[in-house]
Amino acid sequence: MIGVGVVGCGYWGPNLVRNFSAMERCELRAICDTNPDQLKPVARRFPAAATYTRFEDLLADPGVDAVAICTPVGSHHGLASAALAAGKHVLVEKPLTDSVATAEQLVEQADRAGLVLAVDHTFVYSGAVQKIRSIIDSGTLGNPLYIDSVRINLGLFQSDINVIWDLAPHDLSVIYHLVGRSPRWVSAIGAKHYGHLESQAYVTLQYDDSFIAHLHVNWLAPVKLRSTVIGGSKKMIVYDDLAPSEKIRVYEKGVTMNANDAQRERLLVDYRVGDMYAPYIDKHEPLSQVCADFIGAIEDGRATLTDGTAGLEVVRVLEAAQQSIQKNGERIHIGRDGD
Amino acid sequence: MIGVGVVGCGYWGPNLVRNFSAMERCELRAICDTNPDQLKPVARRFPAAATYTRFEDLLADPGVDAVAICTPVGSHHGLASAALAAGKHVLVEKPLTDSVATAEQLVEQADRAGLVLAVDHTFVYSGAVQKIRSIIDSGTLGNPLYIDSVRINLGLFQSDINVIWDLAPHDLSVIYHLVGRSPRWVSAIGAKHYGHLESQAYVTLQYDDSFIAHLHVNWLAPVKLRSTVIGGSKKMIVYDDLAPSEKIRVYEKGVTMNANDAQRERLLVDYRVGDMYAPYIDKHEPLSQVCADFIGAIEDGRATLTDGTAGLEVVRVLEAAQQSIQKNGERIHIGRDGD
Amino acid sequence: MIGVGVVGCGYWGPNLVRNFSAMERCELRAICDTNPDQLKPVARRFPAAATYTRFEDLLADPGVDAVAICTPVGSHHGLASAALAAGKHVLVEKPLTDSVATAEQLVEQADRAGLVLAVDHTFVYSGAVQKIRSIIDSGTLGNPLYIDSVRINLGLFQSDINVIWDLAPHDLSVIYHLVGRSPRWVSAIGAKHYGHLESQAYVTLQYDDSFIAHLHVNWLAPVKLRSTVIGGSKKMIVYDDLAPSEKIRVYEKGVTMNANDAQRERLLVDYRVGDMYAPYIDKHEPLSQVCADFIGAIEDGRATLTDGTAGLEVVRVLEAAQQSIQKNGERIHIGRDGD
Amino acid sequence: MIGVGVVGCGYWGPNLVRNFSAMERCELRAICDTNPDQLKPVARRFPAAATYTRFEDLLADPGVDAVAICTPVGSHHGLASAALAAGKHVLVEKPLTDSVATAEQLVEQADRAGLVLAVDHTFVYSGAVQKIRSIIDSGTLGNPLYIDSVRINLGLFQSDINVIWDLAPHDLSVIYHLVGRSPRWVSAIGAKHYGHLESQAYVTLQYDDSFIAHLHVNWLAPVKLRSTVIGGSKKMIVYDDLAPSEKIRVYEKGVTMNANDAQRERLLVDYRVGDMYAPYIDKHEPLSQVCADFIGAIEDGRATLTDGTAGLEVVRVLEAAQQSIQKNGERIHIGRDGD
Repeated sequence: MIGVGVVGCGYWGPNLVRNFSAMERCELRAICDTNPDQLKPVARRFPAAATYTRFEDLLADPGVDAVAICTPVGSHHGLASAALAAGKHVLVEKPLTDSVATAEQLVEQADRAGLVLAVDHTFVYSGAVQKIRSIIDSGTLGNPLYIDSVRINLGLFQSDINVIWDLAPHDLSVIYHLVGRSPRWVSAIGAKHYGHLESQAYVTLQYDDSFIAHLHVNWLAPVKLRSTVIGGSKKMIVYDDLAPSEKIRVYEKGVTMNANDAQRERLLVDYRVGDMYAPYIDKHEPLSQVCADFIGAIEDGRATLTDGTAGLEVVRVLEAAQQSIQKNGERIHIGRDGD
Repeated sequence: MIGVGVVGCGYWGPNLVRNFSAMERCELRAICDTNPDQLKPVARRFPAAATYTRFEDLLADPGVDAVAICTPVGSHHGLASAALAAGKHVLVEKPLTDSVATAEQLVEQADRAGLVLAVDHTFVYSGAVQKIRSIIDSGTLGNPLYIDSVRINLGLFQSDINVIWDLAPHDLSVIYHLVGRSPRWVSAIGAKHYGHLESQAYVTLQYDDSFIAHLHVNWLAPVKLRSTVIGGSKKMIVYDDLAPSEKIRVYEKGVTMNANDAQRERLLVDYRVGDMYAPYIDKHEPLSQVCADFIGAIEDGRATLTDGTAGLEVVRVLEAAQQSIQKNGERIHIGRDGD
Repeated sequence: MIGVGVVGCGYWGPNLVRNFSAMERCELRAICDTNPDQLKPVARRFPAAATYTRFEDLLADPGVDAVAICTPVGSHHGLASAALAAGKHVLVEKPLTDSVATAEQLVEQADRAGLVLAVDHTFVYSGAVQKIRSIIDSGTLGNPLYIDSVRINLGLFQSDINVIWDLAPHDLSVIYHLVGRSPRWVSAIGAKHYGHLESQAYVTLQYDDSFIAHLHVNWLAPVKLRSTVIGGSKKMIVYDDLAPSEKIRVYEKGVTMNANDAQRERLLVDYRVGDMYAPYIDKHEPLSQVCADFIGAIEDGRATLTDGTAGLEVVRVLEAAQQSIQKNGERIHIGRDGD
Repeated sequence: MIGVGVVGCGYWGPNLVRNFSAMERCELRAICDTNPDQLKPVARRFPAAATYTRFEDLLADPGVDAVAICTPVGSHHGLASAALAAGKHVLVEKPLTDSVATAEQLVEQADRAGLVLAVDHTFVYSGAVQKIRSIIDSGTLGNPLYIDSVRINLGLFQSDINVIWDLAPHDLSVIYHLVGRSPRWVSAIGAKHYGHLESQAYVTLQYDDSFIAHLHVNWLAPVKLRSTVIGGSKKMIVYDDLAPSEKIRVYEKGVTMNANDAQRERLLVDYRVGDMYAPYIDKHEPLSQVCADFIGAIEDGRATLTDGTAGLEVVRVLEAAQQSIQKNGERIHIGRDGD
C-alpha cells in the first residue's frame, strides 16, 4: 500500500487530503504544514495521519512513499526537488514551478531517479475536457482552428502572483491536452488596476500554422465566466464549465471553401448550419481522478496524464507571457533544444 | 426642406432610404446605384425619388442637398470628397474611409467648406449605449478601468476587407463615444483560417493610463455574441446587445484597496458585492436617430454625435490594428500632431 | 389564378395581405375593412387590390374566389357563413368561432358546399412544431405522457374576450396537432385581477388514458415565456419559442419501470440520463405556409393542415374551459355524437 | 446548554446533525436510527454524540432536551407526540404529519405542554424568501395578485407519497409565509404515469378575494426548474432558486386601470414598464437558521418562524389537494372553526 503525505493545508490541500484518505489503493500517512493553526483543523478530521510542521520530518517518515505539494508557487521547486532527492514520488499543485529552468530541472531529476512527477492540472481530468478530447480524437471536429478561453470573475487578488500565473494554468493545461502541441510564440497584454500586479490580462498563443489560442483572465469582472470555444473545420464546441447541465455543446456549424475563382479573385464560402448536441458528461470529481492516476502511475511505473512534461509546457507559456507583458505585448519565441 | 440622396442599394442603403423617406423634416429626392438590378426594387418602393445609375448625375441634381453614402469602404473617400466638392452635406457608412490620410482629408475638406460630415456609427445612437454613457457621465460607475468587447458569430466572409475592418468599427465607435479619448497604442493578432484575409482577430487598445480596451471579432464562431463589459472602480456594466430584455445590467461590484501595510508589503482588498439593476432602455430604432441627427446638424449648423472626427478616430485605430496584425502583434503608436 | 380577398385590417390582417400579395399562385384582389382609417394605409401599400368598406361588396366581387377573415372573434361565424354561402373558400383567423354550435355549423356548411374551410393556426405551421411532430411520429419520443405549456407576458388586455380565448388557441391547436386526439374532460381556473374578464388562467385537459395537458396563460406576467414541455416515455422535448437558436431541445431522459417486486410492493425505477440534441429548425415564416396551404387546398380540392375540424376541436376545448371557469374549475365533459 | 437528539439518518438527517453539532448554543447529544447501517457512518463523524437504535432510549436520555425528527412522513406524528409526551421540544421535517387531524393534535399537545413545536420549512429561512417577504412588507410590490410556482425535475420517485406530498410542502410553506393567510379552496389534478402514485400534479389555491396561487410539481421533467413568480399590483418578482446569482429579480412592470368609460364599456389600461433590479441575497445556509431559530425559541419561550401552526396550514392544503385529486379536480373547501 502506497503511503501518501500531503504538504500545505491552505485552500486546496485539504481537498487532496480528503481524496487520498478516501482511496483504497493508498493510505494517507502524513499531513504537513509549517503553520500549526492551518494544520490542526485538518489533522483533527483525519486522525489516522501523522502530522508534521517541518517538511524534513515528513520526508524522513519511512511510511511516506509519495508526496503531494500544495504550497505557494514559489516553494514548489524546492520542496519537490527535496522530495525527489529523498526518493519520493511527487504530485505538485499547478503551476509546476515559477520558472522554466526549475521546471526543466525537476523533470530531469524525476526522470533520472525513475520517480513519478505529476502535476495537478485538475480540469484536464474533468468529464467535460475528456469528452472534448475524445470528440477531437474521433475526427468529428475536423481540423482545430482556434481555442478562445475566458476565465473571469470578481476574484481573490493574489499578493505573490499576477492573474496570469493564478488563472491561466487551468486554460493552458486544457489547451495543451486538447491540442497536443506547444505554441511557437506567446504574447500578453495586461493591466494593473490596483497594486503592482496585473489583475486582468490577455494572452495569445501562436502556433506554426494558423491555429491560434487566446485567453482572457480577469480578477475584476462583474460576472463569473468559465467558457471555452473550440473552433474546428467541421464542427465547433462551446464548453461552459459553469452550466449546471449541457456543459458541452457541439455545433454542426462551419464554412466550406470552394475553389477560388481566379478571375474574380474572391472567396466562395458555403455556410453549413445544422443540429447542436450536448453529450452527457460524467460527473465524477476530477480531483479524485488526479489522485487515482498518480497512485496508478506509481504502481505501474508509468507517467500520469498530466506529468512533469505537461507541467513544464504550461510553465514555458507562463514565463513567456510574463516576459511579453513586461515588454508591452512583444511576442516571445518559445525555444526548445534544436530550435 | 432638405433634399437627401442615397447612394448604394446593397444591404444597408435601403434602411437609410426607408428612414429618410419617413422623416418629416427632409425629403428623399434621389436614389443611386451603378447596378440597375439593385436600384430597381428600392426605386419601386419609393416612387417619389429620382433614380440615378451615375453618381455624377445625383450630384448634379439641384434638389439634393445632402448625400448618404452606403457603398463598399474602398469607394467612400472618392464619393464623399466629390459630394463635398459639389457642396453637399455627407453622411458616410462606417468606417469613414479605408485610411487615416483619406479620412483626415475629408474632415479637413468638410471643415473648410462648412459642410456637415457625419459617420453612421449606428450603435452609438442606440438606447443602450446612450444609457451607458449617461451612467458613466453621472459618475456612478466611478473611474473606467477597462472595456472588453466580443462580437462574434458565423458571419458573412467579406471579400474586400478582413474581420477587423468589418466588425470592429462598431465596438471602436462605441468605445470612443463612452471613453471620449483615443488610445496611445494599438496591437492586434489575427488568424486567416480561410482565404487571405483574417477571419478572427483580437485587438488591444492601450491608453496613457492603466485603462485598457480589448476586442474579439470573429466570423467563424458557433454562437452569436455581442457583449461588452465595462469595468469601473465603483460599478461594472454588462451590455448584451442580443438580450431580448435587460440589455444593460449594472453591478454594484468591485474592490476597495486599503492603504498598504508597509511592513507586510501586501495588498489589502475589500470586496464589495451588492445589488444589480437593469435600467429600462428606450427601444427606438437607432438608425432613425442617425438620420435625424444628420438633418438636425445641417439645419442648425452643428456637428453630429458621430461626426467626421469620430469617424477619423475609429479609422486611426483600424489602420494601426492593420499594421500591427501584419507585424505579428507589435504595438503601434498612434501619433498625432505634437506627439 | 385564385383571387383572394382579405377582410379586417387591424393587427393581423396586413400580414395576410402581405403574404398573399407575395405568392405567385394566387392574386390579392381585394381588401376590406369597415373602418376607412384602417383600410387606407394598407390599401396604399398594395395599390393593385380593390378596396371595400362593406363586406357584401367584397363578396359580390367576381374576382374574389377565396376570403381570409381577420376580424374580431364575435364576427367570424357571420362573415364566414356568408362567404361560404357566396361560394367562396374561407380562411378564418383563430379561433374559428366563439361557440361550438357555430363552429359545427361552419364545418357542415363548407362540407356541403364542397368549399375549403381553413383556420389560421399559425404556430402549427412553424418549423419547430413540424419538427416536434416528426419526432413524435418517428417514435423516438416513445409514448407521449404530458404536455405542459406556458404562454405568459405583460400583454394587451382584450376588452371582448378573456385570456383563454386570446392566448390558449395557440397552445390548443399545437397540442391537437401533436397529439392527434381530443381531451375527454377540460377544467379551468382563472383570476380577474382587473375588469370583468380573466387575465390569468390555468387550463387542464384530461384524456381517456393518463395523458394530460396543461396550459398557463397570463396577460399580467413580468417576463415573456412561450415554453412547452412534451414528456414522453423515451425522451422529452423542451420547446422554447423565444429562444434565438435551439428552439427545440430533445433530452434523452426518462425512467424505466422494472417489474414490481411483489413482496416488497414497491416501485423500482431506473433513471436514464443521456445526451441532449437541438435539431436544426427551418426558419421560414409560418404564415406564408398557412397561405400556401390554403391556396394549395383550393387547387387540389383537399383539406388544409389546420382545417375546419381542427378549428372546431380547439373551440370545443375553449368553450368547455369557459364553462369550467364559471363553475370554479368543475371538470366539463367534452361530448360528441355517440358518447 | 440545550441538548439535541436527531432521529433519522437518511437523506436529510445528517444535515441537521452537522448543523446542530456546529452550533455553540446547543449540544448534539444523541443520534438515533432503527437501521444500524444508516446510523454508523453518521455516528463515526460525530463521535461525541450517543447513539440509539430505539427511539424510546433516546427519549429516556436525560441529556436530550429537544428532538429533531427526520423520518418518513408516516412516522412523524407518532414520534413527535411521544417526544412531546416525554417533555422534549420538537423540530419535525416537512410536512408536519400526513393528516390534518394528527397535525392539529400535535399543535394542541405542544401548546398544552408549553413546548416548542417547529417544522423544518427550510426554504422559508433562505435569504431569497426573506428578501421577498421584506419587499412585500415594505409595500413596494403593491397588492399581491398571484403566485405561480414551478418545481419540476427528473426526480426520485417516492414509494410512499405522491409528488404533491413530496415537493409541494416547499412551495406551500413559502406561499403561506409570503401571503400570511390560507386559501379557502384547493383543487388538484395529477397524472400517474408510472405506478399507483401521481408523479405530476397541478395544485390551485383560491382565496377569499381574487388572489390565486398555482403549483406545478413533477418528478418526470427533462429540466430542473425551481421558479416562482409573484405578481403584484405595482411590481412583480421572479424568484429562480437555481440561478447562480440574481435569484430574485424585481420588475417595475404592471398595469394601471383607468376609470371605465361607461358609454363605451371598455377597459382602459395603462402599461408601466421600467427598470429591473436584483437585490443582493445573503448566502447563509438556510438550515443553519432553522436550527438557530429552534434553539432560540426554546431559550426564549417563543414560537419559531415556521411553527406548528405553519406546519398545520401546509398539511391542510396537502390533505385538501389529495382529496381533490381523487375527485378529479373538484374544489375542496378548507374549513376551520367558525366557518
